[in-house]
Amino acid sequence: MTPVSPFAPSTFPSLASIRGLSFATASLEGRYHPRDNLLVARFDTPAATPANTPATLAGVTTRSSIVGAPVVRARSAIQQGLIKGLIVNAGNANTCTGTQGVNALSAVCASLAQTLECPENQVLMASTGVIGEQLDPSPFCHAFPLLSFNPPNTPSPSLSPSLWEKAATAIMTTDTFPKGSTRSLTLENNTYALSGIAKGSGMVAPHMATMLAFLFTDVSLPASRLQHLLEKAVEGSFNAITVDGDTSTSDMVLLISTGQSPTLSAHQELLFSEHLQSLCHDLALQIVGDGEGASKIISVHVRQARTQEEAKIFARSVASSPLVKTAVHGGDLNWGRIAMALGKTFIPLEGDRISILIGDRPLYQQGKVCHNHVAFCEKHVKENRVSITVELSLGHAEATVYASDLTHGYVDINAHYRS
Amino acid sequence: MTPVSPFAPSTFPSLASIRGLSFATASLEGRYHPRDNLLVARFDTPAATPANTPATLAGVTTRSSIVGAPVVRARSAIQQGLIKGLIVNAGNANTCTGTQGVNALSAVCASLAQTLECPENQVLMASTGVIGEQLDPSPFCHAFPLLSFNPPNTPSPSLSPSLWEKAATAIMTTDTFPKGSTRSLTLENNTYALSGIAKGSGMVAPHMATMLAFLFTDVSLPASRLQHLLEKAVEGSFNAITVDGDTSTSDMVLLISTGQSPTLSAHQELLFSEHLQSLCHDLALQIVGDGEGASKIISVHVRQARTQEEAKIFARSVASSPLVKTAVHGGDLNWGRIAMALGKTFIPLEGDRISILIGDRPLYQQGKVCHNHVAFCEKHVKENRVSITVELSLGHAEATVYASDLTHGYVDINAHYRS
Repeated sequence: MTPVSPFAPSTFPSLASIRGLSFATASLEGRYHPRDNLLVARFDTPAATPANTPATLAGVTTRSSIVGAPVVRARSAIQQGLIKGLIVNAGNANTCTGTQGVNALSAVCASLAQTLECPENQVLMASTGVIGEQLDPSPFCHAFPLLSFNPPNTPSPSLSPSLWEKAATAIMTTDTFPKGSTRSLTLENNTYALSGIAKGSGMVAPHMATMLAFLFTDVSLPASRLQHLLEKAVEGSFNAITVDGDTSTSDMVLLISTGQSPTLSAHQELLFSEHLQSLCHDLALQIVGDGEGASKIISVHVRQARTQEEAKIFARSVASSPLVKTAVHGGDLNWGRIAMALGKTFIPLEGDRISILIGDRPLYQQGKVCHNHVAFCEKHVKENRVSITVELSLGHAEATVYASDLTHGYVDINAHYRS
Repeated sequence: MTPVSPFAPSTFPSLASIRGLSFATASLEGRYHPRDNLLVARFDTPAATPANTPATLAGVTTRSSIVGAPVVRARSAIQQGLIKGLIVNAGNANTCTGTQGVNALSAVCASLAQTLECPENQVLMASTGVIGEQLDPSPFCHAFPLLSFNPPNTPSPSLSPSLWEKAATAIMTTDTFPKGSTRSLTLENNTYALSGIAKGSGMVAPHMATMLAFLFTDVSLPASRLQHLLEKAVEGSFNAITVDGDTSTSDMVLLISTGQSPTLSAHQELLFSEHLQSLCHDLALQIVGDGEGASKIISVHVRQARTQEEAKIFARSVASSPLVKTAVHGGDLNWGRIAMALGKTFIPLEGDRISILIGDRPLYQQGKVCHNHVAFCEKHVKENRVSITVELSLGHAEATVYASDLTHGYVDINAHYRS
């Protein structure tokens, strides 16, 4: 068995309840059975709203040009901004499954819609796992009517902390620990809460992985505002991490609001946005720390780039380089590989004007090694959190990307899973 | 010690002599000492030409935006098209070394120019090894006057076969076997020869690697024609291989002609061009077969792309994907990862219209798995040469890229070299 990541927290964090959110989990036959491998979430809006009013949905999906049927459906639901029920299965990505896969997805969603008594297009599904295997809808359809949602749909339900952990565990694939994060704030006598769970470890199937995050809140904001805030938060978090540079066909981050707390003022929205960013950052780093085979977390900061886009390209190139990742893994101060990774972007640079800092100490500057910092840097690169900073002398833009290292564990998980 | 690649030939091939080419090797203090770690080549044109006429030079260098001093010098020499002497050292890349590195390079080249009695700008150096370490010119300057060139500068010298192997070994860094290839042809009573040596294993320093190839011929062709033919040959060979997707700061392919065989006709030039392409292909595949930790060679063929450029992007994406490479390493038929790697190019695709063939048998077509081919494909992916073909149904362009797999050996070589 894969050992648990050294970055796993000792206990699952205590996540704030979201008014109007209920979960049910179950174990279906197939991969990861007998543990729970199915999560269903139901969203209830304030009692004052008409019966079965859907919650508000925002979302960001993978940029891959090959995506699973669930991603296509999610993109269209995000356009509408409405959701009543969410299904997450672990083990089958329902990708490269053709018309049959689309039909299976529709059947599963229609079945939950019947149970929840809502329109079919208010039910979404997020699937990760093996690519190219057909999804059998019948176990899902049989399971839904038997699910017991907790808390039940009462005026002031509250989710028990243990249920958050159960939900975060049900969506895991190659993850070695469940991932959750929470923020809450009292504003003028009103408390709002924001809690999220995520999964992700390597990038893609078969044998699992792919990144998913589901963020729940009771704030009352229109879908377009939620979408704006989510996109901003994703850019600096889930879009700034890399385990192996492989982009999934199934990635999805959803932000769902039950609207059970009062409408936010402009100032309150700003606070909420900050909370959303820090929560996404926390979950993203949990994903990196659970990167397949990860023994270290590497943060790559690029400063003084011409544009933010170029800064991100440079940072990604360093963070994705197998030679940089293996050197960090081995605790070897091979800073020349950082220079190589900058150069392989083919973006014009002046090698003699760049500075490379390790653990915030300059190691290479103006074409010369800073010999008085070598001992410090050699020590820093042996730690389990390694910080690499590059200053390019080209402009004022900057970006940060987080990565795991490249280890035997990564090769083992991905080469020998089925053997 | 790193085990020798399973793709190493049992003996070094017998390479055809090139009239006018002499080699000398030596062992300088430093990395790889006491084995020879320095190669010097001298080029002599036909006796009828004025004394010390330089040979004709064509070359292709790395596209990296951070390059070593030797690459900058080579680019300028390639513009001139003239070369009298070539120095290749193993162990120090002379990259990210600032003005001091440029001065060291000039001193070394000036010293050989004095020995060879030629202008300084007709001497080139190719350096691979650690990035960011200063190169000490003095051991080189002391060594040059003592070198004994073989064959000496006589009217009809002939290079002994063992000297080719010695030369190919002197330029090695993390390579586990010396690499050579040869072609020759008799045309209307004239024989021309084309022989080349190469090095390359991972991509870049510290600790070695980077790809270099030196091709020698006695054909008589102007520099501009040689350059044209070389660029064409490189595109389908050295530019079509990947070990880890990391691009070196020092890559160089040089084609040097002593002009000692008669001028080629247009038809003969065509034959020479074909020989050049097949020789480059042979050397490039030797480099992939000696990829750091390689246990398998993967060929990725992309067909029916919109343009050749897109075909190459798709092929590179599949060939560079850590998840594809680990799956092939483990002999696991994870074809979904191939779909993922196509998608992560972000180039528009229709997932249901692509076909994926393994060992030339269709495995996935029109959104469905071809179940009658699964057993064959599962067997093929366990072999040590694995062929992946993707048909995109988008157009008529195609490209092929060759890669090694991703193994524990790669992680070991690159994480623990200095420990």
